[in-house]
Amino acid sequence: MSACVMSGLAHLFGILSFILILVWLLHFREGIDYASVNPFRVFNVHPLMMFLSLIFLAGEAIMAFQTVPAQRHIKKFFHMALHLIAIVLGIVGLCAVFKFHDMLHIPHLYSLHGWIGILTLCSYGLQWVFGLVTFLVPGAQDATRARVLPWHKIGGKVLFLMAICAAETGLMEKAGFLSLKAHQTETSLVTFTGLSILLFGAFVFVSIGIR
Amino acid sequence: MSACVMSGLAHLFGILSFILILVWLLHFREGIDYASVNPFRVFNVHPLMMFLSLIFLAGEAIMAFQTVPAQRHIKKFFHMALHLIAIVLGIVGLCAVFKFHDMLHIPHLYSLHGWIGILTLCSYGLQWVFGLVTFLVPGAQDATRARVLPWHKIGGKVLFLMAICAAETGLMEKAGFLSLKAHQTETSLVTFTGLSILLFGAFVFVSIGIR
Repeated sequence: MSACVMSGLAHLFGILSFILILVWLLHFREGIDYASVNPFRVFNVHPLMMFLSLIFLAGEAIMAFQTVPAQRHIKKFFHMALHLIAIVLGIVGLCAVFKFHDMLHIPHLYSLHGWIGILTLCSYGLQWVFGLVTFLVPGAQDATRARVLPWHKIGGKVLFLMAICAAETGLMEKAGFLSLKAHQTETSLVTFTGLSILLFGAFVFVSIGIR
Repeated sequence: MSACVMSGLAHLFGILSFILILVWLLHFREGIDYASVNPFRVFNVHPLMMFLSLIFLAGEAIMAFQTVPAQRHIKKFFHMALHLIAIVLGIVGLCAVFKFHDMLHIPHLYSLHGWIGILTLCSYGLQWVFGLVTFLVPGAQDATRARVLPWHKIGGKVLFLMAICAAETGLMEKAGFLSLKAHQTETSLVTFTGLSILLFGAFVFVSIGIR
């Protein structure tokens, strides 16, 4: 019951964050277009894709064992598939920011946000491959699975923590580049988006921690 | 054994982060002095105190049940006392940033970092009071304690996640105010400090998650 309420609240803040990001990028910023000649429209693919992948889909995948009303092997398939889609969208989002840097001759990967982000995406990919071969195809022996499972779970939680930090630092970095001031509406919008993402993450953690 | 190695690694990254912050504030910045007429020396009390309180001491308090080699009631006392010292230092760090804002006529609490930070410190104080009356003085009945304990644990983990986000967004915000560029040594120092704090947090999580 408690876990159900908590995952419900997680969904709520996940959807709220998605709406807030769209309002931000479409109304306050330049819009979203990977193929645009306007580098800022290309950049905006980055926050949208990274949120959808490493935050929203990752959170849904983490909660899949509680939220998917099916047998265990179907839940497991959803868990794996949602993470796979997240990795693909994450790579698109990463390519968008690299393309933006190239268009404006900005160096790649020098800030704290950049390093947290790339470490998270790479480790996330490794964790997915490791999880696939251990638990699904071909799958290890039962004794090995039982030994590996706690590490898989705690590794996943740490990666999700890293992804939330990547999102929050990314919002702060962009707010800094835009020199957002206290009296601007956009400042409040970015703050609410960051808090909503944090609450999504918090409720994902609580929903899997409380049975 | 695993938990022991993980808490050892947490200590290592905790001390590394402390050294990096000191090098940053004392060598690259203006130094640390709450009573100074230089507002930037006053400001520098903030990152130092917030790291020592909501990150380092909070992490040590979370791990106290594994790391303090004593009977359970002594471990519990250390857990409570470390969190109490953390709250006191956290209030000092918060006062420092408010004093800095007043000295330079900067508005309080408008950024994402500011809101994550203040929400974390306030909730942390509430969690401490709630923990004290439930588990220590006067202490609830056994059945109540058993019911409350999972919520206390997961609440503590979420607060620690929030504290790490506050630290990382704080570093990004300051890097933005200083307009740190890719080729500067200080940029790398801030990045390494942020990654070291993230690794401290990760190993605290792993050490309590893996028994």
